[in-house]
Amino acid sequence: MDLSAIRFADRFDGVSGSAIREIFKLIAKPGMISFAGGNPALSALPDETVAAIAQEVLTDHGKVILQYGATEGYPPFLESLKAYVQEQLGCEAPSVLPVTGSTQAMDLLCKALINPGDVILVENPSFLGNLQCMRLYQARLMPVESDEDGIIPDKLEEAIRRHHPKMLYTIPTFQNPTGITLAAERRKPIADLAAKYGVIVAEDDPYRDLRYAGAPLPSIKSFDREGWVVFLGSFSKIISPGLRVGYMAGDERILRKCAIGKQSADVHTANLNQAIVDQFLRRSLLPGHIRRICQSYRDQLDAMLAELALYPAGTRYTRPEGGLFVWVELPEGLDAKTLLDKAVARHVAYVPGTHFYADGGHERTLRLNFSNATVEQIHQGMDALRQIITDAM
Amino acid sequence: MDLSAIRFADRFDGVSGSAIREIFKLIAKPGMISFAGGNPALSALPDETVAAIAQEVLTDHGKVILQYGATEGYPPFLESLKAYVQEQLGCEAPSVLPVTGSTQAMDLLCKALINPGDVILVENPSFLGNLQCMRLYQARLMPVESDEDGIIPDKLEEAIRRHHPKMLYTIPTFQNPTGITLAAERRKPIADLAAKYGVIVAEDDPYRDLRYAGAPLPSIKSFDREGWVVFLGSFSKIISPGLRVGYMAGDERILRKCAIGKQSADVHTANLNQAIVDQFLRRSLLPGHIRRICQSYRDQLDAMLAELALYPAGTRYTRPEGGLFVWVELPEGLDAKTLLDKAVARHVAYVPGTHFYADGGHERTLRLNFSNATVEQIHQGMDALRQIITDAM
Repeated sequence: MDLSAIRFADRFDGVSGSAIREIFKLIAKPGMISFAGGNPALSALPDETVAAIAQEVLTDHGKVILQYGATEGYPPFLESLKAYVQEQLGCEAPSVLPVTGSTQAMDLLCKALINPGDVILVENPSFLGNLQCMRLYQARLMPVESDEDGIIPDKLEEAIRRHHPKMLYTIPTFQNPTGITLAAERRKPIADLAAKYGVIVAEDDPYRDLRYAGAPLPSIKSFDREGWVVFLGSFSKIISPGLRVGYMAGDERILRKCAIGKQSADVHTANLNQAIVDQFLRRSLLPGHIRRICQSYRDQLDAMLAELALYPAGTRYTRPEGGLFVWVELPEGLDAKTLLDKAVARHVAYVPGTHFYADGGHERTLRLNFSNATVEQIHQGMDALRQIITDAM
Repeated sequence: MDLSAIRFADRFDGVSGSAIREIFKLIAKPGMISFAGGNPALSALPDETVAAIAQEVLTDHGKVILQYGATEGYPPFLESLKAYVQEQLGCEAPSVLPVTGSTQAMDLLCKALINPGDVILVENPSFLGNLQCMRLYQARLMPVESDEDGIIPDKLEEAIRRHHPKMLYTIPTFQNPTGITLAAERRKPIADLAAKYGVIVAEDDPYRDLRYAGAPLPSIKSFDREGWVVFLGSFSKIISPGLRVGYMAGDERILRKCAIGKQSADVHTANLNQAIVDQFLRRSLLPGHIRRICQSYRDQLDAMLAELALYPAGTRYTRPEGGLFVWVELPEGLDAKTLLDKAVARHVAYVPGTHFYADGGHERTLRLNFSNATVEQIHQGMDALRQIITDAM
């Protein structure tokens, strides 16, 4: 029988793979100025430190690191992670589970909770990778209304009463793709609504440390009394995405299910990678490293916003206080997907915004990343993009 | 609302976590002689080599290694892996996908193919971790009859005609838990049946290089003309399980679905871990390393079999030519689960065989691992176990 007779699982109906990762292939050309990814700057990746740490931990604990580990985490990392998470969340340390990048955290949380047809409320637009994750669990994605201060609690309550969701998925700080941050005064109401209606909140917060202005805000998790909020954390943006180390923090009962799901997902996160991040925490290397990254990213963001101020009337854009992204809405009549070909021909890349909407549409929007281009490249690329847009009007 | 109101997903109904990993916690005491795990010997873990390689690859390619990578794999590793797989499988290189341990390979294959209720044929007994994986995809597991030469092709055809399975899951070489190897002359018939009926074969072959006697056998994949066989490979038993690097090899159409599933599972396998295994392949370090491991494991297996020869009449056991496990059936009236407590009290551990059966039962059976104890510990532990068994008769 020819393999073309194969039937793939229903969960793939309508899922054709990450549009962003396809765009990455398209733009992998020398000389490309990419505003498309969510990649840290190469200069932000601490290669020398990691090289020294890797050699040290393997010399000191090589046999333990190379042997099978516990699904629940590499013991020294569990210890340092708990202290770190307590500080991050500003609340009594809940249970933690190290995972293979916070992408795995979302996958395990869906595995633990989502039956086909269950509703998940999502910001609209939202992070493409996790939208795909939720779709592969055959969840029904329902948008919840936001404004420039993030999710609107009253609208959230309306959506909960209408759709009876299993989960709310939110990126409260410097959201991907919009850069918007959930206002301080909306955080407790969201935790309260979760407990009132019994809705899990997946608080995905990988960008919180990349703050270039304003004061840090308390996590939604810090207002959680009953355990309905699960915090998804990542070291991808502050140490290295290539190491694939993240964590989930939340109630023991939920994390136990996630750990069982993880047993047959990848047994455990590689010990070496956990041991490397552990040393960053133990040696208190993060605060200084994050300060250095943020200095540079602040200049890059400023350059991008300065260029956007020169864009034709009718262009709207967010002014984030941190993170990696600026969200742009082009003047009426323009289509960011069509313009991408022209941009790529001039060696500039971005991601059309339509991909980030659960329901498509919004063809005028696009996402710009500023962390992975130098200030000079940002001026050059943003200038080229402005010309392309002006020409198309 | 109290969190006790939470409803977990249906896929967890009847799944309570890996019994083996629970036993690991029970026996994590100093002085324990463990025949329970599937762990390589500590002496088999190349910690010094990995320490040197990690430092080198991070020094030479640190920025690339710490940055996001492609879901399809770290390019240098993809290159060396293709050559390695071609040699391993003895056939034209199919597509390969690096994964986070071969456990992830099984997870992605089920994600790509299995709808709830789909039938998967399994050897009975089989590997616990992957049985749990298949259960979490809500597959119906149906045993296929085997003898001392592995799956019986006629019985397989009967089972296919009766159950219309989506997949056959098999560990053809030094099977976990039995140590049994699928006879050479049964391999082509199984590939042929897969193509005849359009059944995917998941050929899980992590132990094939751990051969202490006899000649290597061709993979089932090498007889596959139409693409129905997917080979799941691992570096856990020949380099390090803690690094979590494995691969799948098979038809591009299947691997593409798996890669899409992997995008939202963990984005990509950590580059550092792929780069380390890449260097083992590039520097041809594996043949010598495997030869050294096998010398030692052969002595350990011989010691275990010599002890088993002294066990009371009515004890039956397999005599594997490789791998990590010996399978034992105790004399009638004994229960391996009950005896485990007594064994642990005398600092000896094993896994009761009942856990490896899709349908439970078989209380007289147990699995013994010989790789993670010295020859002296094997004599000591097997002697203690013999006394416990004799006392219980």
